[in-house]
Amino acid sequence: MSDPTRALSTSFLQKLHAIVGDAGLVQDEQAKAACDVDWLKKWQGVSSAVVRPANTAEVAAVMRLCHETRTPVVTQGGNTGMSGGATPDDSGAQLILSTTRLKQIREVDPLNNTVTVEAGVLLANVQSAADDVNRYFPLSLGSEGSCTIGGNLATNAGGIAVLRYGNTRDLVLGIEVVLPNGDIWNGLRALRKDNTGYSLRDLFIGSEGTLGVVTAAVLKLFPKPTTRLSAWLGCDDMDALLEVLARMRNDCGDRLVAFEMLTEDALALVLEHVTDVRRPLAGKHPYHALVELADTRDAELGSLLESVLEKAMEDGLVQDAAIGANLAQRQAFWKVREGISQAQVRAGKAIKHDIALPISSLPGFVDRAVDAVKQVKPDARVINFGHMGDGNLHFNVLVPLDTPDAELKSWIHALNRVVHDLVSASNGSISAEHGVGQLRRDELRHYKSETEFGLMMLIKQSLDPNQIMNPGKLI
Amino acid sequence: MSDPTRALSTSFLQKLHAIVGDAGLVQDEQAKAACDVDWLKKWQGVSSAVVRPANTAEVAAVMRLCHETRTPVVTQGGNTGMSGGATPDDSGAQLILSTTRLKQIREVDPLNNTVTVEAGVLLANVQSAADDVNRYFPLSLGSEGSCTIGGNLATNAGGIAVLRYGNTRDLVLGIEVVLPNGDIWNGLRALRKDNTGYSLRDLFIGSEGTLGVVTAAVLKLFPKPTTRLSAWLGCDDMDALLEVLARMRNDCGDRLVAFEMLTEDALALVLEHVTDVRRPLAGKHPYHALVELADTRDAELGSLLESVLEKAMEDGLVQDAAIGANLAQRQAFWKVREGISQAQVRAGKAIKHDIALPISSLPGFVDRAVDAVKQVKPDARVINFGHMGDGNLHFNVLVPLDTPDAELKSWIHALNRVVHDLVSASNGSISAEHGVGQLRRDELRHYKSETEFGLMMLIKQSLDPNQIMNPGKLI
Repeated sequence: MSDPTRALSTSFLQKLHAIVGDAGLVQDEQAKAACDVDWLKKWQGVSSAVVRPANTAEVAAVMRLCHETRTPVVTQGGNTGMSGGATPDDSGAQLILSTTRLKQIREVDPLNNTVTVEAGVLLANVQSAADDVNRYFPLSLGSEGSCTIGGNLATNAGGIAVLRYGNTRDLVLGIEVVLPNGDIWNGLRALRKDNTGYSLRDLFIGSEGTLGVVTAAVLKLFPKPTTRLSAWLGCDDMDALLEVLARMRNDCGDRLVAFEMLTEDALALVLEHVTDVRRPLAGKHPYHALVELADTRDAELGSLLESVLEKAMEDGLVQDAAIGANLAQRQAFWKVREGISQAQVRAGKAIKHDIALPISSLPGFVDRAVDAVKQVKPDARVINFGHMGDGNLHFNVLVPLDTPDAELKSWIHALNRVVHDLVSASNGSISAEHGVGQLRRDELRHYKSETEFGLMMLIKQSLDPNQIMNPGKLI
Repeated sequence: MSDPTRALSTSFLQKLHAIVGDAGLVQDEQAKAACDVDWLKKWQGVSSAVVRPANTAEVAAVMRLCHETRTPVVTQGGNTGMSGGATPDDSGAQLILSTTRLKQIREVDPLNNTVTVEAGVLLANVQSAADDVNRYFPLSLGSEGSCTIGGNLATNAGGIAVLRYGNTRDLVLGIEVVLPNGDIWNGLRALRKDNTGYSLRDLFIGSEGTLGVVTAAVLKLFPKPTTRLSAWLGCDDMDALLEVLARMRNDCGDRLVAFEMLTEDALALVLEHVTDVRRPLAGKHPYHALVELADTRDAELGSLLESVLEKAMEDGLVQDAAIGANLAQRQAFWKVREGISQAQVRAGKAIKHDIALPISSLPGFVDRAVDAVKQVKPDARVINFGHMGDGNLHFNVLVPLDTPDAELKSWIHALNRVVHDLVSASNGSISAEHGVGQLRRDELRHYKSETEFGLMMLIKQSLDPNQIMNPGKLI
């Protein structure tokens, strides 16, 4: 307790220790420090302590203690968030409750197509547990090797299979939650149909730790696809891409599992800054799409993809296309798509917008938004890519690495305002899949109607009257 | 106002009239009376008046008036509910707010795969609106020609396509709600991804009119299947059925859209009491299943179904099977399945249980539940059928038509208790898809944990502090 900003009383620490023991209290200063900052090193906080309960009962005991002492609690999973939602403030008063020891896979039920896991299980381990019983858990995102399923639930994570399978919310049947007063709500129902009252489950999913601590969840499993095919398409404009998407959905039905878009600028950035990638098509095209089909049967998928693409090329919608039939070819395509994040980090400083619109509004929006950005910052580089099949764009603005932070700050607000105003005008979302956290809390307040914000406040106040759950985030 | 139980003041009625005009106030006593009783004639109430606002603004004005005067409100759609959720009590104090004039289809957006409809639109009309633009809206239930989409949202209706498409909740992107104080919350977002705060949408869906009045919704559309095949299977036991279901899900993937189960007793009841149906297979089998496959492509579906069934018969899981390849054959199968409700009405008095369990628990549960029922009432006829692919059984107990109501009453409680205790022991649901309403309100209170019920009460109290929304239902 030599650090004056760590205002934890000795008696509180002793009580914590009595609950979780040596293994549950992070004593090492370096390990503590790693929890105080987000992985992007964008938000630096100072926690009072980091506690790692071993099971739900310990989480409940910790929360009872925090309730009695009015101690603010920041729940943290894999610490891979994009919006500072799991980083404490710098008051030294907030306790980090890490879920990393809640890592039991409690039950796998292949006949019910469900798996029951604790919050600290890595997403990749959920995927493997499904695979082990010849089933499929479709949630998939860049950080799947280090993010926890609890964090995925807290942010209602999206990813690359939403087009077919939905967001995290759509993959959850039941949850177990420790409430702000330490009570345990066991809502671990493994049911496809259950209409016994308000959907409390959906209230906690996506609430970013502001209403309680999710300690476990029952997740849906799906039939495992046995065939996958990818294709890379080059197109002249967004309208053509939109028409291709509509045709592919109609012709391929549920076989279409991903439809990712990137501009030539985004592709060029990857080719410039990422090693071991190559241009998927011979020529340049203003817009590119990476599509993926999957099926539980082998036959026909190739001929289906070929026929859809041939017709689209005949009709002038697609200028060029390449099919990735084997694993190496598919991985090469995805490496380009997934290289965008890394390329951005290397190429400059990015002002990111994680937005969603009605899919039919995307082409008009992009034209207007690029114009608006250029008016604020004529030399900015727009890196526009995203999950087009979900209407979700990562509409980012890149400036040179040597741009001083102070200068950057002077544009950020203006850039956010013009982009988010256009999103709002199209009835879109300013926070599609990366969470609100600290990053977009003020923006959310700016764009939410008084009525909607008022409803959210009513719920927050009734479930967390002492405001100890993740203060300063989301709401 | 000659009826003394209709305690509405003249001034309130004048104010109502000023809001909705002649067309919006039901003056005809016969029309009023039809709203005071549910369609099963099981719950008879006495409302103070029936108001039919023409649009959201009128709903808001009516709710403001009810808020100011603390007038309790019962929202009613097509009045096709199974649990008395839209029927007023007999106090004469409750106002019925009918949504039947809110019937605009506000927008159809095939590129975004969405349709925006008002609460009073008939489910069948939503289906047609989708069909008109070559899309598919999958919600389907017996009353689709007369139930409203608002009622489907209020009860989170299930139906026969949940296995592939989910419940109503899974088909909704955004909603518009008039709150208990008359404020309008416009949450009509047509987005696949939106993480800007608590999922208020999911709070209102399934809340049976106890938190607000849903006036419109944005619904998801899907690629339209072009081929459908049905098959009727005869099996020896539930374990075999369960194995067939698992195999079909794995082999057919998303093509499997329905897996309905009925016992030989249920089939016999239909054959006895419904005209124009015939036994789908030559012989008798303890258990029957009606399965349906659908695809956006024509080829292969027939050979897939044949190969799965052949293998299941070789392995002794299926004793006999018939494929319904054309529309007439498919309709003949479904007529048997859908005849069960009518057959029950004709054959006796039914004590119904609308339950869901983990699918893997179904066989054990059925054995235990039949035994338990026989112990309470040895001569009772168990009619067991349901959406096995969703773990949802309609586990009904039938007694002769001439059983006196008083005698019936003496068993109902004991029968509910033994069946629901077994459901609860398997971590199942006592209300899967028919809603809680008046019918299962006490049962819900009996089985909900204090913690969960407490959370529901917190939400009810914060959103409807004057308790004017559908009092006496659900909570």
